[in-house]
Parts: sequence; C-alpha cells; structure tokens
Amino acid sequence: METQGESIHKVNFATPRGFTTAFKSDLKETLFPDDPFHEFKNKPFSTKTKKAIQYFMPIFEWLPKYNFRLFKYDLLAGITIASLAIPQGISYAKLANISPIIGLYSSFVPPLIYAIFGSSKHLAVGTVAACSLLIASIIGEKVSPIENPELYLQLVFTATFFTGIIQTAMGFLRLGIIVDFLSHSTITGFMGGTATIICLQQLKGMFGLKHFTTKTDVISVLHAIFSNRHEWRWESAVVGIIFLVFLQFTRYVKQKKPKLFWVSAIAPIVVVITGCLFAYFAHAEKHGIQIVGDLKKGINPLSINKLNFDPKYMSATLQAGIITAMVALAEGIAIGRSFAIMKNEQVDGNKEMIAFGFMNIIGSFTSCYLTTGPFSKTAVNFNAGCKTAMSNVVMAFCMLLTLLFLAPLFSYTPLVALSAIIMSAMLGLIEYEKAYHLFKTDKYDFCICMVGFFGVAFISMDIGLMLSVGLAILRALLYVARPATCKLGSIPDSALYRDVEQYPETSGVPGILVLQLGSPIFFPNCTYIRERILRWVRDEQANRDEGSDIEHILLDLGGVTSIDITGVETLIEVLKAMEAKGIKVALVNPRLEVMEKLIVTKFIDRIGKENVFLSIDDAIKGCRFTLKHSKQFADINV
Amino acid sequence: METQGESIHKVNFATPRGFTTAFKSDLKETLFPDDPFHEFKNKPFSTKTKKAIQYFMPIFEWLPKYNFRLFKYDLLAGITIASLAIPQGISYAKLANISPIIGLYSSFVPPLIYAIFGSSKHLAVGTVAACSLLIASIIGEKVSPIENPELYLQLVFTATFFTGIIQTAMGFLRLGIIVDFLSHSTITGFMGGTATIICLQQLKGMFGLKHFTTKTDVISVLHAIFSNRHEWRWESAVVGIIFLVFLQFTRYVKQKKPKLFWVSAIAPIVVVITGCLFAYFAHAEKHGIQIVGDLKKGINPLSINKLNFDPKYMSATLQAGIITAMVALAEGIAIGRSFAIMKNEQVDGNKEMIAFGFMNIIGSFTSCYLTTGPFSKTAVNFNAGCKTAMSNVVMAFCMLLTLLFLAPLFSYTPLVALSAIIMSAMLGLIEYEKAYHLFKTDKYDFCICMVGFFGVAFISMDIGLMLSVGLAILRALLYVARPATCKLGSIPDSALYRDVEQYPETSGVPGILVLQLGSPIFFPNCTYIRERILRWVRDEQANRDEGSDIEHILLDLGGVTSIDITGVETLIEVLKAMEAKGIKVALVNPRLEVMEKLIVTKFIDRIGKENVFLSIDDAIKGCRFTLKHSKQFADINV
Repeated sequence: METQGESIHKVNFATPRGFTTAFKSDLKETLFPDDPFHEFKNKPFSTKTKKAIQYFMPIFEWLPKYNFRLFKYDLLAGITIASLAIPQGISYAKLANISPIIGLYSSFVPPLIYAIFGSSKHLAVGTVAACSLLIASIIGEKVSPIENPELYLQLVFTATFFTGIIQTAMGFLRLGIIVDFLSHSTITGFMGGTATIICLQQLKGMFGLKHFTTKTDVISVLHAIFSNRHEWRWESAVVGIIFLVFLQFTRYVKQKKPKLFWVSAIAPIVVVITGCLFAYFAHAEKHGIQIVGDLKKGINPLSINKLNFDPKYMSATLQAGIITAMVALAEGIAIGRSFAIMKNEQVDGNKEMIAFGFMNIIGSFTSCYLTTGPFSKTAVNFNAGCKTAMSNVVMAFCMLLTLLFLAPLFSYTPLVALSAIIMSAMLGLIEYEKAYHLFKTDKYDFCICMVGFFGVAFISMDIGLMLSVGLAILRALLYVARPATCKLGSIPDSALYRDVEQYPETSGVPGILVLQLGSPIFFPNCTYIRERILRWVRDEQANRDEGSDIEHILLDLGGVTSIDITGVETLIEVLKAMEAKGIKVALVNPRLEVMEKLIVTKFIDRIGKENVFLSIDDAIKGCRFTLKHSKQFADINV
Repeated sequence: METQGESIHKVNFATPRGFTTAFKSDLKETLFPDDPFHEFKNKPFSTKTKKAIQYFMPIFEWLPKYNFRLFKYDLLAGITIASLAIPQGISYAKLANISPIIGLYSSFVPPLIYAIFGSSKHLAVGTVAACSLLIASIIGEKVSPIENPELYLQLVFTATFFTGIIQTAMGFLRLGIIVDFLSHSTITGFMGGTATIICLQQLKGMFGLKHFTTKTDVISVLHAIFSNRHEWRWESAVVGIIFLVFLQFTRYVKQKKPKLFWVSAIAPIVVVITGCLFAYFAHAEKHGIQIVGDLKKGINPLSINKLNFDPKYMSATLQAGIITAMVALAEGIAIGRSFAIMKNEQVDGNKEMIAFGFMNIIGSFTSCYLTTGPFSKTAVNFNAGCKTAMSNVVMAFCMLLTLLFLAPLFSYTPLVALSAIIMSAMLGLIEYEKAYHLFKTDKYDFCICMVGFFGVAFISMDIGLMLSVGLAILRALLYVARPATCKLGSIPDSALYRDVEQYPETSGVPGILVLQLGSPIFFPNCTYIRERILRWVRDEQANRDEGSDIEHILLDLGGVTSIDITGVETLIEVLKAMEAKGIKVALVNPRLEVMEKLIVTKFIDRIGKENVFLSIDDAIKGCRFTLKHSKQFADINV
C-alpha cells in the first residue's frame, strides 16, 4: 500500500471561508459559470473599456479584422439564406395569421441588429414556425385575425416587444439557467408535436380550404379539414403534392451528397418562383389555387405606435411573450451552441439572449414579429461556409432589394406552394430516431418527450410544453430525493475501494462497513439516507457470520458536493443510532463545502477530528488497531 | 505507488442490467428505502401471513409479549398524558372554533386506533394547535363558526375525513417522500409563526373579549384586540397572568431538573381544576371571566351522517384536508422518528401514515377532529416512561371515565385558564436559538425559515407554508443545477488526488488536468458542466508555462450517481471540443448506473474502453507513456 508504514495523511480542518466569500463564489458559479470577465483581469483601463465594448458588441471584435477573402464566403452564404428567407418569411407569417409582408420585414431589420450584438458566427436570423404558431394560438384565442386583423397585428407586435424585454432582462440577469431546464427530451417532444400539427394545418393550404379553425390541437384541425370537405380542390392538391415531392427529393439528395446541400437550400425559392410563374400564366386563382395577394413595395414602416398595452389583452400578450421567449431562446441558443461546438468556439448564452432581446424589441418597433435563430436557416448558413455575422448583413441587404423592387412579384405565390415548403420543413423536425434512441436508452426521458409530443398535439402547445417541463423537474427532484448510496469493498492487490455490486470480485473488510454516500445530502433525501444507512447495517449484520459483527462504519463523503443543516442533523442521528448499536462512525474525505458546514455546525467536534480521514485506506488503518479480529484483517491486507 | 509496476486494474464493462431490473431497483429505492419486507424473505407461508398481520397491526407483535411489569409503566404514563389531554383537548377545540367536548372526544377514539396500527412506542395521540388553527382559518373563510356552527362542524369533520383518506393513501402509495420536502428549516419557521399568532389570539381569552376576528394574520389579530379595547376586563387579565406565570415556572423547573418533568406535565390539569373551583365558588362569570359552558356527559356520538360533500364547500374542505394532512404528518412522523432514534428503534414513516389515516377516518365518523402525535404530549409520554402504545389505551380509558362522569365539572373551566395553557405551550414552540443556529450555519436555510415565519405571521398559515416549501424546492433545483466541480492535484507521497483549493499542498500533474465532476449530471446542469470544464481548461492553459500545455484531461466520475441523455450528449460535446484542442479525454471510475448509461448510449465505444480507468492513479499511468514530457512527470512521480 502506498502509505504502508507512513503516517496517515492529514485532513484539512482549516476554518471555513466567511459568508461573503462563500456567497460570492456560489453566486459566480450560479450566474457566471463561463466567467465572462476573465479577459478583463489585470488589464489597463483603456483595454478594459475596449474589451467591454467588444464584449457587448462583438461586431467591433471581428469587423476590424474583416477582409475581402472572408466577405466572399459571407456573400455566398448571405444570398443563399436570403433565398430561404423569402419563402419562409411569407409562409411563417401566414402561419401566424398575419400579412406575408411582415414576414419579409422580419428578415430585414433583426439580422442587422444581430450582426452588431450577436456572438455566434454561424447563426442566421429569421422567423420560426413553432413560435409563429404559438403566437397565433395564444393571441388568436383573444382576438380573431380575420374579424379584427388590425388589433390582432398590434397584439402580435406587443407580444414580440414583451419577448424582447424578457430576453434582454434574462440576459442581463444572467438567467440562462432557466433555459437549462428545457431538456433535450422536452425539446424533441415539443418540436415533434408542433411539427405534426403544423403539417396538419398545411392541409388547409393543400386542399385550398377557405374556412379553418384557429385551434391548434390535432382533433379540431382534422375536424376542420373534414367538415369542410366540400371546399376541397383537387387542382390545388395536385400542385401541392408535386411541390412537396420535389422539396423532399432535394432533401434526400442533400442527405446522400452533403456537398449538394445548396440544392435543398435554394429549392424553396425555386418552388416559389415556379409557383408564381405558374400562377401568373395559368391564372391559377381561377382554378381554386389561392395566391398570397398584393404585397406593397417599400421597407419596414414604423410600428412603435402600434404597440397595444390595453390591460384587456395584457394577459394574452404577456403569456405569448413569455412562452415564445423561452422557446425561441431554447432553439436559438441550443443551435448557436451546437454549431460553435463543431468549430470549437464559445457562445455566451447570456450574451446571445441580450442580442435576441434587442433584435425583438427593435423589431417590434419596425413592423417585425418574433425572430430567433432557426435551425434550418442556420444549418444552411453554416454549410454555405459563412465566416462571420456578415452573412446576416448580406441577407438583410437582399431583403432590402426584394422589399424595394421585387415584393409585388411574390404576390402571385400560390398558398399551396408555401404549404408545401412548410410541410417539408416540418417533416424534418419530427425525429423518430431520436425518440427511439430515448426509448432505448432512458425510459423516463422518453416519457418526458412523449408527454411533450402528445400534450402539444392533443391539448395545446403551451400546456404540452409546461407538462413536459414539469415532468422533467419532477424527475430532477426525484434525483435529489434518492441519491444512490453503495457499499464498497476492497479491490484485491490495491488500495482501491469500489461498489461491491459493480465489482463482485471485491472483498469486504472484516468488522468494517464502508458506505459511499450520494450527493447532495440535504432535506429532501435526509430521511432516505438515514433509512438506507440503517438498512445497510441491518443487512450486513444479518449476512455476516456471528464471529465478526461490525465495529466500524466508514462514510465516504468524497462524492458529496454539498450538505445542509437537515443533512448534518441526519448525520448526527446516524451517529446516535450507531453509538446505540456500539458501532464507531468515521468520515472519509469530506469536500470543501461539506467540511465547512460540518465545522460550523460543530459536527466535527461531535465526532472527533481523529475520526475524519482523507482516504478509505487511511480510515481502515485508523480503525484496524481497535479491531477485535485484526488477525483476519491482516490476511486480507497484504 | 501501490500499483507500481503492476498491470492497471480492470474496469467493469459488464452489459447493463435490463430495463425491468434497473427500474425495479429504482422503484424500490424510491418507495421502499427501508425495505419493509426484509423480514418476509424465505420464510414459510404461515410465518409470512403472521408477519404480514403483525406488519399492518403492530399490536399483534407486542401484545402477546405484554406483561404486568410493562403495564405499570404504561399505566403511569397513560394517566399523565390523560391529565394533559383534557385541558389541551378543550383549549385546542376552542382554537378550532368548535365545541370543547369535541376536543375530549378526539382523545378517546383515535388513541385506541393508533394503539392497533401505530408502530411507535412513545407517540401519544392528540389534537395539535397548528392544525386546529389551520382548519379554523381555512374553513372559517367559507362558513362562520358563530353564525352557522352546525354546518361549520360538519365541514370540520369532512376535512378530518379527507385528511384521513389522504394520509392513508399516501401511506399505501409509499409517498412518505412528499413529507421529506418539508425541511427542518421550513417546519421551524412555520411552527414559530403559528405559535406567534396563536399566542396573540389567546389575548382574546386573556382580556376576556367577546368579539374577535376569524383572520389569523398578526395585523388583523392585533387590530381586533385594540379595536375592542372597551371590552377588556382586568379581572380576567389578572387571573390569566397568574396562571401563565405558574405554568411557565413549572416549565422552568422541568428544564432545571428533568426528573421533575411531571410537575409541568400535570400543571395544566392543576390550572384547569383550580380554575374550575375558583370559577365555581367566586361566580367568576359575574366578574367578566367567561367559562367554557355546559359539557354534556356521554361518549362520542356517531358523526358519519354529518360528513358534508356539498361541492360548494368541497374546495375548502379538500384544501384544509390536504394542508393539515401534510402538517400533521410532518409533525407526527418527525416526532415519532426522533424519539425512536433516541431509543434506537425503527419507525416506518409509511406505516405511521396509514395509522394516522385510519385514526382520522374513524375519528371523523365518531365526532373527533384532526389528531396526530403532538410533540408536547409525546415528550411527556416518553418521560413518563411509557413502554408500549398501551399508554394510549390507558389515556383513552381515562377519557372514557371523564366523558361518562366528570365532563360536566369541566364546564366551569375559565377560558382564561385555557388561554394561559395554550400560550405557555406555544411559547415553547418559538425556537429562537434554532433560528439563530440556522443564521450562523446556513444563510439560505435561515431565509427559508424566515419566509415561513413571516409568511405565516403576516399573510396566512397555508400561504406561508407554501412559500417556504417553494423556496426550499427552488434551492433543491439550484443544487442540482450547479453541482460543484473541482480540480484535483496529487497529494505528496501518496496515490491520492484531492481538491487543490482544499489541499493547497497538492501538486499538479504536468500535461494532465484532473477534474472531479459533481453529481448528478443531467439536463438542468449540462450546460453549466460543459462551460465549467471548458473554463477549467482555459484557465489551466493560461496559467501553465508555455513548455507544458495540457495533453490529457481526466474526468473523475467517482462521485456521479446518475447521468441522463442530455448529460451523455454533453460529455460528447466536451469530447469534441477537447479533440478540437488536441486534448485527449479519459474517464475515471464511472459508477454502476453511469456506466450502464454510457454503454447503452455507445459513449464508451466513442471514447474507447482503453480511456476508461478505475482510479486516477491508473489513468495517469495510462496517459504518461503518451506524454511529451514524461521527464518532468518522472520527477513528481517518485
């Protein structure tokens, strides 16, 4: 043994850090885990200010170093995503039951804002289907977009404004932590459910229906489709299916040959243009194929005067604002991060929130509705080889040209083409494999995912989301309520002690029971931990032969990250119970926070410093002398 | 080093347990932590059934072995707690705004039920102040006890019935876990706040007021007292203060000389009797000292027909039922446990719940309101040397005699005497020292406590309780959202690696960064853990001299009890990020559950079995060969 014959290693009983010190470090870990200010340390003031500006406006970090070589890439990427932005803008605007032009507006201003404040190089700004539908469903309940489009639009802008405020606030308050509670399982389920109902809703466009429901659950959507059977138009359906097949084919091509990603990237704009030409020459509207209708020229009008804070609608707009803020952040940040990981760059979630927030606040002043970093667009941007946020600027410029000159041309876009575009986009969001993977690997995660999916599909998007999150949090609580403890045995020819269940070859130590406690030890799991320890002892005494009953119990706290008062009281109770049984208790390797708590609560004095050890091996050495059967012990301790 | 020259220890990559196996063990840990069936294992059927009956009706376990020697103790204890039960019964009934006789009834039937089903030897059954007031405040909002006493009484019984149902259900569903979420801090704060407002309410009795408020918050209670200044009667106040001083003095005596506990135990009945005599001979009621008023002879009438399930009041009764159920359980179980600990016996929380449940269901059929194991009574019972639940039977018998013959005598009890009894009992529940202890040891626990206290005192009992629990749960979530990770260094002359912050004498290992991850790793903390690891690496690269940059990073998972999909994905992301930096990642000692998850998610295949080690020491040996500067390494590795 490495410490054979040596003195036992000293445990650090240094006096605990002061409250402020401990509190500061906790606060830092909670709110600044990524230590955003590490660059500011011991730098002259000028550098500090420069860094600060660069920190809040990353554009000043990359623009100076910007050159034409980089621009070539960004130009290509920018044009590509612009070609995606036009059809998506129009379609998702329809999804939110607002005029298509708003969709185009939303791809002009926000990208410029993001280019200034955004920290991700690959993120492409745009509207997203899920949030568009969320807005439509929440605000649609209060005001009908058909009967009162003006008021409806006002509320949409207001909701966007709230979204922006909430995102900015969260960013400044470093509340990225809240977004962490949207687990991958939740998002998978939520996205899948949303995609499903969005696809169903597109059947409206596919079949060229005039009347439809504002509800979003499967039942009422299906009902709306079949109850309006008489409105079905085969012409529309045929055209739609042709477009859909084409789009899916391009996706297939991309999957087969990733280098041909641009095929699927430009496919939507191709569909729109062919759709327009077809509609224009074939007078499609006469054959029951509806078209988008007039789109005025000109750039975003101001909409700051349209913000509507009438308390009557406040609840709805706020609800929409909060929920979409969460969803948009979850999608935007997750995506920005995942691409950054690929390129091994860092994305500051909280900084991103602030960028998104500004984006939506200013957007709501300039006739834009909710924008974030949509997955499809960002992926295209990434594949198109963008190098900086400049690609967003390029896109914005293209949108400017479109708004100034081309907008009217798009007025011929057949709705069915848009439906096809949305459907094919959504079909990509239903991740069967991932759900199956969850099922294979973690049943509980699978439940969370399914609750999200069916909740969204059959009740409503927000309720579905909340149910799924609630379930996930319940699990989080169960985790902390039942931390795994295990019995350790010594691994032959080593000073290692491991879980006997995991390593059956381990041998127990006569007279000594070694337990590893789970983490953290605090009020929700104290009763459990005590019961469990008592049970270990009971079982042990039952199993061991009469000769050698337990004289010592070692509690390995090495894995315990924190403990609270109730936890300490539990340890004391265990101590009493053991003393009553005539068993000595020793602690092994309490970590910093735990040791501090044990010292201030006088527990260390209670148990005695001589009974706290740095390693199990030391502890056993410490106990062995007092053991009745040190003979047996010697045998195993070679 | 212990494994110098030896082959590195093998890690167990056994194929994971099947879902059912894992699920079963999880379920067992969650719902049966105390393994209640351990006695049933491999026993013949006859024994099993016997054990089963004994399990559900502990009386069959101790009664057969019962003898006269034990009975002597129980008889004394029983009489003592009966002498406490009479005044407490009457006073707390007044607190719940119901007829005093109900209080006496409640000390007759429930103790008998508990004697059959209860598993604690020391617990004495009775009514409690907190719950009495809770019921009064919740039901009082719906129905006024003065204007409509009959309906009010019905609702009290109904609430009691619900309490019983809930407790029983929780017991059978093994939901003791819910009670675990009432932390000591919460209970301290809640009890303190309750005691405070109860004391204030007693001023009504003290000053002999006729009119008062049904509200329970400090403001309205104080207002009610001073707005009725004209009703104050000095006679009443004088008598009250004399009684109070006497009671407090006996408590003081008990604290000084624990052997004289019986002095404070019988003090209440003494107060009541002297009060009665005084009131009878001095015609106290003529001098503004109100008395209890007529108490009819006879035992509990049936009240099953009084249960009122009118949906109009359902919400109130249910709310009262649920909240009081929680509070009563928290008090009852906590107390039962703490006394069992002293005597080193085991109390099964879930079994206790069932016992309490039956107690209250049958109670609600027989004109009893909510009963549980009150602290004061149980302590007295314990001190009086009770040996089995028989003491409850004795108490019930005494109550029987009282109801049959003595009840009318108590009708002369002055209200002021009862107020004095309640006040002195409550003063004992305000634990300043404990609050101060919390302040010294854990600021956050102190906040939870204070929120409970002020919430109860200034808003309302249920809201105060919920706020406090909510805050506690928020903390639980923060715990899991920010598990402490730390950097490990090697302790000189040993194979031990410990937190460098805690053990400054440790030396880093050139070229290798060793991190210990917190537990558990799952969705709420994944982002944090990734950010944190990246930060460790960044700081490390910044600090280390140019010569030796990091080539390996070891993640010590020894303390990680569980991991979910999101967690595994995070590890993969870390892996990618490190590979991009040209740093190799190795895992150390993943525990059973973690290893299983890593295997099914194919993570092990991704990282390679050769990069998973059983101990940090092994891992470093494994890495060293590939290290550029094994020279440096050799230096520290003597």
